Amino acid sequence: MGLANIIGLCLGWGLIIMSIALGGIDKLGTFIDIPSVFIVIGGTFASLFVAYPLASVLGVHKFILVSFTAKDRDPVQAIEQIVSLSEAARREGLLSLENHMEEIDNKFLATGIRMAVDGMSPEVVESVMNIEIDAVSGRHLYGKTVLGKLGQYAPAFGMIGTLIGLVLMLADLDPDKIGAGMAVALLTTLYGAIISNLMFLPWADKLALINDDEMQIMEITLKGVIAIQSGENPRVIKQKLLMYLPPSKRPEENEEA
Amino acid sequence: MGLANIIGLCLGWGLIIMSIALGGIDKLGTFIDIPSVFIVIGGTFASLFVAYPLASVLGVHKFILVSFTAKDRDPVQAIEQIVSLSEAARREGLLSLENHMEEIDNKFLATGIRMAVDGMSPEVVESVMNIEIDAVSGRHLYGKTVLGKLGQYAPAFGMIGTLIGLVLMLADLDPDKIGAGMAVALLTTLYGAIISNLMFLPWADKLALINDDEMQIMEITLKGVIAIQSGENPRVIKQKLLMYLPPSKRPEENEEA
Amino acid sequence: MGLANIIGLCLGWGLIIMSIALGGIDKLGTFIDIPSVFIVIGGTFASLFVAYPLASVLGVHKFILVSFTAKDRDPVQAIEQIVSLSEAARREGLLSLENHMEEIDNKFLATGIRMAVDGMSPEVVESVMNIEIDAVSGRHLYGKTVLGKLGQYAPAFGMIGTLIGLVLMLADLDPDKIGAGMAVALLTTLYGAIISNLMFLPWADKLALINDDEMQIMEITLKGVIAIQSGENPRVIKQKLLMYLPPSKRPEENEEA
Amino acid sequence: MGLANIIGLCLGWGLIIMSIALGGIDKLGTFIDIPSVFIVIGGTFASLFVAYPLASVLGVHKFILVSFTAKDRDPVQAIEQIVSLSEAARREGLLSLENHMEEIDNKFLATGIRMAVDGMSPEVVESVMNIEIDAVSGRHLYGKTVLGKLGQYAPAFGMIGTLIGLVLMLADLDPDKIGAGMAVALLTTLYGAIISNLMFLPWADKLALINDDEMQIMEITLKGVIAIQSGENPRVIKQKLLMYLPPSKRPEENEEA
Amino acid sequence: MGLANIIGLCLGWGLIIMSIALGGIDKLGTFIDIPSVFIVIGGTFASLFVAYPLASVLGVHKFILVSFTAKDRDPVQAIEQIVSLSEAARREGLLSLENHMEEIDNKFLATGIRMAVDGMSPEVVESVMNIEIDAVSGRHLYGKTVLGKLGQYAPAFGMIGTLIGLVLMLADLDPDKIGAGMAVALLTTLYGAIISNLMFLPWADKLALINDDEMQIMEITLKGVIAIQSGENPRVIKQKLLMYLPPSKRPEENEEA
Repeated sequence: MGLANIIGLCLGWGLIIMSIALGGIDKLGTFIDIPSVFIVIGGTFASLFVAYPLASVLGVHKFILVSFTAKDRDPVQAIEQIVSLSEAARREGLLSLENHMEEIDNKFLATGIRMAVDGMSPEVVESVMNIEIDAVSGRHLYGKTVLGKLGQYAPAFGMIGTLIGLVLMLADLDPDKIGAGMAVALLTTLYGAIISNLMFLPWADKLALINDDEMQIMEITLKGVIAIQSGENPRVIKQKLLMYLPPSKRPEENEEA
Repeated sequence: MGLANIIGLCLGWGLIIMSIALGGIDKLGTFIDIPSVFIVIGGTFASLFVAYPLASVLGVHKFILVSFTAKDRDPVQAIEQIVSLSEAARREGLLSLENHMEEIDNKFLATGIRMAVDGMSPEVVESVMNIEIDAVSGRHLYGKTVLGKLGQYAPAFGMIGTLIGLVLMLADLDPDKIGAGMAVALLTTLYGAIISNLMFLPWADKLALINDDEMQIMEITLKGVIAIQSGENPRVIKQKLLMYLPPSKRPEENEEA
Repeated sequence: MGLANIIGLCLGWGLIIMSIALGGIDKLGTFIDIPSVFIVIGGTFASLFVAYPLASVLGVHKFILVSFTAKDRDPVQAIEQIVSLSEAARREGLLSLENHMEEIDNKFLATGIRMAVDGMSPEVVESVMNIEIDAVSGRHLYGKTVLGKLGQYAPAFGMIGTLIGLVLMLADLDPDKIGAGMAVALLTTLYGAIISNLMFLPWADKLALINDDEMQIMEITLKGVIAIQSGENPRVIKQKLLMYLPPSKRPEENEEA
Repeated sequence: MGLANIIGLCLGWGLIIMSIALGGIDKLGTFIDIPSVFIVIGGTFASLFVAYPLASVLGVHKFILVSFTAKDRDPVQAIEQIVSLSEAARREGLLSLENHMEEIDNKFLATGIRMAVDGMSPEVVESVMNIEIDAVSGRHLYGKTVLGKLGQYAPAFGMIGTLIGLVLMLADLDPDKIGAGMAVALLTTLYGAIISNLMFLPWADKLALINDDEMQIMEITLKGVIAIQSGENPRVIKQKLLMYLPPSKRPEENEEA
Repeated sequence: MGLANIIGLCLGWGLIIMSIALGGIDKLGTFIDIPSVFIVIGGTFASLFVAYPLASVLGVHKFILVSFTAKDRDPVQAIEQIVSLSEAARREGLLSLENHMEEIDNKFLATGIRMAVDGMSPEVVESVMNIEIDAVSGRHLYGKTVLGKLGQYAPAFGMIGTLIGLVLMLADLDPDKIGAGMAVALLTTLYGAIISNLMFLPWADKLALINDDEMQIMEITLKGVIAIQSGENPRVIKQKLLMYLPPSKRPEENEEA
């Protein structure tokens, strides 16, 4: 998903810079005002510090990173790995999966298989995996909320910055400087609008989408581990797990049943 | 539903153009500013790229197309086809429906009948059809959300464009150019307001309505296939399925019971 | 309910006209600008055409009419009619209600009694009446949504009209015409605010209230028909149905039990 | 609760008047404009007339009065009265409560006891009292909605009034009168903001709080009447009813059990 | 959590002061206007007085204090204390916990253990502890609502103050004073935006987070007390309670089972 994210950021910032440059290449400097950057970004994070514990604020880059690095994970591939493990379990017994552990790149699946191999009861396996699912979902949704708050505070501090600029300009009304003063004052509103609408709010939406995707794969993995543990037929497991996908995402099947 | 959609777009754009032309036919050019078009539409899609995976953004035209091409489907006609199939099944046996497959223009009904003819159990038929219903509904509602996000980002980028224009104008305050500068600056806000309120937001509403309609027909089709499979009396099937329609949509019945 | 509706519209428009006239009777003409009326009302309906099927848009006057013509229906009177029918049914048998059909002015009650007289089972009567209740409620709430959308689009097109007017004025900045130009430009925002806040939004609220009232009477009617059909004692029926009303709406009872 | 309400109104209006007077005592007159008062308050009620039946609009003062006159009712005192009635019932029999009726100042409790004394079954007592609870809650929440609507319409008519004033001023642009014209035009927005934020919206919030308080006492009363009727031990009744209160509101108990 | 709160406030106010000082150290005085402070903060609390009972308004500082003083409580430590109590109970009997009461710093745990030692039934212990949980949660959420209302009223009174200032300035239009007049008028909007976005709204969010944390620990404590009372194995208790934590918060375990 990171690619679309990067395309979007380049496109958005590119259009903004182009649209300034069309007003004159030399105007680009007018749009960069370090104190304005400080008041908008700093103020936005100040509100986040007030609302959230230290660890969450200092870890906000992790939520942003997730929106870049989350892989488009293929549920069909996950299903196929589960099915091939179930075939191995049928052929060589559940304990033999021990030897297949290093092939499993999905850590959540590995945890589940490990517990099955260790002989824990299906109820325990299910409950431990469900707690992990809730924890992952909780982390994603917490990240979504934090990024959403940044998207809410940014325009507010944009407005606060503009109000400060306006009061400064008005308190000392010099006809020759009105234009420049208002221009600088408006920059904070512009910054707040851009970082909120091009970055924080879409990133918050993206975390929700990533969560939906990951929840689907984790649910499928959970059902798959339980099915392997109860020794179900690999073909039946495959059919059952594919049911969780919308028809368009299912692989073409050449079943002649 | 496409007709109303086209009428609305023509009416809306017609009124906007008329209202400009009344200020002077030669003024129409003033309202077209290519960079402003780029920043609003481009920026809106940039945010969509940040929030959604590549495939969803590149497929957004499909959601828009659906709002034009979705047919007003007549639930009564769907019921009549189901009833006539149930009569054939009663007369000639369930397997004979094989010969009626090519008459069925509703693909969802065809899938259901095919499974019934193939001898799958009613539980499996119902569960497979339900997954298809969820998939169609999920696709429509996903489309509604994406179009709604476009309707939310468009005014934001309209404002961003206007702020850029204002800063450019103010930074270089030339009394003779204030008017023209502000006029151009306001165009992006105007563009954002129009594409959001005349297009993206109503299209999002329309996808929700199309979904309601299609869900109703798919529910009726599902109940109908199950009823045919269990060999119910065609008259009873008809009465039962008509119950799902509000009285005003039911055909006049000349029942003499 | 129509009376309050008419009082409200007269009061609202009267105050608006008065408030203009106080600025000078000759100023009333300034506030009437046909193209502005077109862009606001036309544009609002254009968006409705995009969002809704043709039939709903062309039928929007029906939803508005309902808000004028819906009668304040008295649930106590409805209960009394049910009770008197139940007395007749006890005295002369259920079939005798045939002769009382023409006295029943409540069509929903008439439908229910007709089905009871025709010997349909209580389950069928209840299910048919429930479908009718859902249909009426669905119609009202659909109307509420459509009027609410008009109330949402109207201010948006008010703003679109104002932006067009401002761009026209600014693009051709003539100091002598600034005032008049802005005055005309603001008219669309004014129109949008008035038709949204004085008409569409309150009408949408009113449809919801009318629906609440009608649902209450229909629920009472349904319970009454079932009670008559099962031959319950008229006194018990009355007590039971009055329970659905808040104490303040119940008639004074001179019960000596 | 009335005291806080009055303090709030005095404080709010006092600060507003002070803040004007600091700009010059003679300026107070500038802020009073009868037509502006009419358009804001009149228009707000006009929209209410359109949305609500006559009786609700004409009774709106009752909802406002409730926010002043609702007493802070003490649930502990209510519990004590129930406990002392239960002791009397245990000592002298349920029927003896007849003689205690005039001591009961809580009308809802009196109704419940009366029904118990009259020998109605606990089910009937509970159902009649529950209907009364729903009716009281419905009335409060209806009042909250009506006041909330006033709080929503008032700023809208404030803006409508300002737009009318601006158009009047702009249509006849006289440099000497611009200031005064805009000052008057802004008054309606000011009025709308004040009556919405200092009065209607907080009153709507207050009705919700009053409802929460009253619902708690009515629930306790209902449980108490049922407990008395079933002849439970007064000490047990007290313990059970105190459970409904948060620990901080429970009286210090010197129980030596 | 208090540290992040203080960092946020210092950072936010520091940035605001810096951003003013960059416009000229001597300008800081321009931004302090006592009457503007009064109308915004006073008016905000006036609306709170209208909406809430006296005690809630006068106790608002307690809700704010909670957002500073709530400790980051460590659920693992709470679990360990419960486990060590369960070991003592196993070794020396439930009654021996009497001697450990003074070691328990968690008052809620102490209450639960006291009840267990006093021989109350598990059902009573659970119900009393649940009522306490509801009371704590209710208090937090009430505080969140009150702070949220302050965050909603503050910008409204900021706007009211600005409108008063504008009307004062416009009514007496003196070209030399326009700038200063508008500067002062805008201060109230600035104050409203700052106290709402940097203080009240984030504090409201923080109370919700504090509540989530405390609810988790109280739930764990409740389960722990019940487990101790039923004499469960300390190791099992530990495993069970750790299940309530997300894996990342669980201590590294060197279990060799």
